[in-house]
Parts: sequence; C-alpha cells; structure tokens
Amino acid sequence: MSYRLHYWPSIQGRGEFVRLALEDADAGYRDIARGPQGIAQMEKAMARHHVFAPPFLVHGQVVVAQTANILLYLGPRLGLAPKSEAGRLWLHQQQLTIADWLVEVHDVHHPIGSGLYYEEQKREARRRAADFRDNRLPKFLRYFEALERPRAFTYLDLSLFQMIEGLRYAFPRAMRKLRYKNLEALHDKVAARPRLAAYLRSERRIAFNRQGIFRHYPELDS
Amino acid sequence: MSYRLHYWPSIQGRGEFVRLALEDADAGYRDIARGPQGIAQMEKAMARHHVFAPPFLVHGQVVVAQTANILLYLGPRLGLAPKSEAGRLWLHQQQLTIADWLVEVHDVHHPIGSGLYYEEQKREARRRAADFRDNRLPKFLRYFEALERPRAFTYLDLSLFQMIEGLRYAFPRAMRKLRYKNLEALHDKVAARPRLAAYLRSERRIAFNRQGIFRHYPELDS
Repeated sequence: MSYRLHYWPSIQGRGEFVRLALEDADAGYRDIARGPQGIAQMEKAMARHHVFAPPFLVHGQVVVAQTANILLYLGPRLGLAPKSEAGRLWLHQQQLTIADWLVEVHDVHHPIGSGLYYEEQKREARRRAADFRDNRLPKFLRYFEALERPRAFTYLDLSLFQMIEGLRYAFPRAMRKLRYKNLEALHDKVAARPRLAAYLRSERRIAFNRQGIFRHYPELDS
Repeated sequence: MSYRLHYWPSIQGRGEFVRLALEDADAGYRDIARGPQGIAQMEKAMARHHVFAPPFLVHGQVVVAQTANILLYLGPRLGLAPKSEAGRLWLHQQQLTIADWLVEVHDVHHPIGSGLYYEEQKREARRRAADFRDNRLPKFLRYFEALERPRAFTYLDLSLFQMIEGLRYAFPRAMRKLRYKNLEALHDKVAARPRLAAYLRSERRIAFNRQGIFRHYPELDS
C-alpha cells in the first residue's frame, strides 16, 4: 500500500525529513500537493482529518501528523529504526531535539510572527541571528557531534544530513567557523548512499529557497 | 519500580506535564532535583545519559527525554493512553502540537534569545505578544476546541488542562475575550479529579512565577 505524503509543494521544509526516509528506503509514495490540484487536495484532507499543519501522512486508515511522529511510524516499516521500544524511543527523542532545533532555525528569520514577512521583522531577526550563531547553533552541534548513534543506519542519520545541508546553505560563514567532524563524515556518508544520491540529483529534490525554513540572508550570517 | 523525574525544581515548566500524569495516576515517583543536592544530581544524570535538556525520566534501565516522548512512554503504563498503535500515535500527535504551542508561549517573552533576560528583549516581546494574542492563540484554541477526543481519559486531557491554567495566568485579559467552552468544561472536569485536586492543593504543585514558561507581564497581555 502506497504512502500519501501531504506537504507544501514548493519548499523542502519539514516535509523533507519524511521525503528523505521514503526515498532512501525506496518506498512507494505520492507527494500529493505536488500533483494536479495538489494544494486543494491537501487542504481537503487536512480539514477531513482535522490536522493542525502539514506534513501529514496517509497510509490506509492511518493518518499521522507531526514530522517526528511520522518518522516514528515509518521507521520500523522502512527498516530505518530499531525494533525495541527503548531503541525507538531513544531515536524519537533525538528527532524531537532536531525538531526543536529546526524551530529555532526558522525563528531566526521569523522572530516576531510566522504570518509576517521577513522584511517586517528584519531588525529583530538580526538580533536573534546573533544569539543563534553564538549560542544555540554551537550548542546543538556539540550535542549531536558527541552523540553515540547506533551502528545500524536510521532516519536520524538522514535527518542530521538534512540539518547540515540546510545550515550550510543558510549560514555558510557561521558554519565554516565551527568544527563538527563526526557530523561532516556522517553527512558525506549519507550523501553517497546510491538511492539518496539519485534523489538529490533528481527534480523531486526541491532546491533551498527563501520560502523554506533554511533561508540564506547574508545579513543573518556572521 | 519507582520513576525518577529530573526537572528544574522551581518552575512548573515542561516537567509539569509529566508531573500531572504521574500524580493523576498515583504512580510512585521521585522529583529528583527537588531533593537534597537535587540540581547537582540532575546535572550528573544529564551528563551520564547525554540528555540535551530536562525534563527526563529514568525508569530502571530506560532513560527518556523530551516531554511528549516521556508521556508516550508513560501513557500506556499509567492507563492514560489507548493500547493500539494508531491510538497512541494520534494522542502523541496532539501532545506534539501542544509542545509547539508551548514554545510559542515561551517565545512571547523570549523572542530573541532564551539565554537573555526578558528585560533585554521587552520591545520585541511586545510585538511578538500582539501577534500571539491576535493570531496564534486563537488558532491553537480553535484547533483543540474542535478536536474530538477519545472517550477514555488520557494524558492529553491533563495537558490541555495545564495549557488553559497557564494561559489564564499569563494572559488573563486575552483569554477572557476568547470563547473555548469545550476546553473550559474539560479544564473543570480535570480540576475536579480527586487525586489531581489533592495535588493542586499540595505544596508539590509549584506556583506559576516569572521564571517559568507561562509568565504574566501585564504589558504582554491585551
């Protein structure tokens, strides 16, 4: 049974963490909002299933929303998570910390309101960016750099790859000043996985842009 | 086997969502950081288990961090979650949406940096507060007001009680202008549960204060 992913069609955003898992596992899936009348279909499904926000996944009778929760569901099914309860909870815990990190990445360019344009909160964004670069970014990197990951490949590896990709796009100068060799090695290992590499070269991979979560504004980089 | 909860001893914060579940279920637990040398003990355990941030729960060999993940673990054990996978994922999804909401409540008074004092970001906080009161608060309330909860009592009911309590403390004027009768009825039903009522009257319940997540600053209320 094929998975139906619902997410905004023009950005990587949170949906990309799910796409990476589906692509790496070669799972059959449809990216609904990227098809004909896609956004209308997504909005209909959101209303029907009372979903707060994309991404969400429909799989038979099951509807799962919240990125980390979708990966919790998909992990064992795609061979990207351990089978034991303790192992799955540990992995999920790391994914939730990535979710927290991602909110902070977003709020660098939107510190006042997600419904306002960046241009309406540029001054505040500069202050928040400085705090992010000086304190939060090094703290999260240090934490994941020192994390002992399980031997087996998991969706956490894919998500950390995506964080490094996105951060290098958004904050190239700040990232060059930081040391994170374990994560760098992981990033390169993930990028070389054949199915993932094919996906990254394909047009299914949306380019980073200024509508997404990771945004490059030179004035917010150090 | 008794649960060991690790969380900051002087605020309700995120730990309170776990405390409410443990208290309502009458589970044996120790609130480690509130005992002798509590913070030192918590910090030692954090380092040993490589935990990013409190709260975290230690239960035998299992260590679980991230509030919603702790409730995912405790739910079936305390009789506060359905047994089926789909039911547990659905409940967890709601809890993750509450976690997102809580970040936004926090960021109203800390829009620039969690390591800075409120006084250092008062101007930005006023702008963020207006957006929160006008857009985000009504959106979250509408979502949960219309949510069809399962018949059986769950940790989601406890968490929604806590959100209403906290929001009424922090934003009394804004909350009086909003209609949320289902959540109000739920709040009152939860508050009347005998074990929970006893907990709320006890000194184990820390009062809301200006170090916590829910903070009352009149200038941020409408």
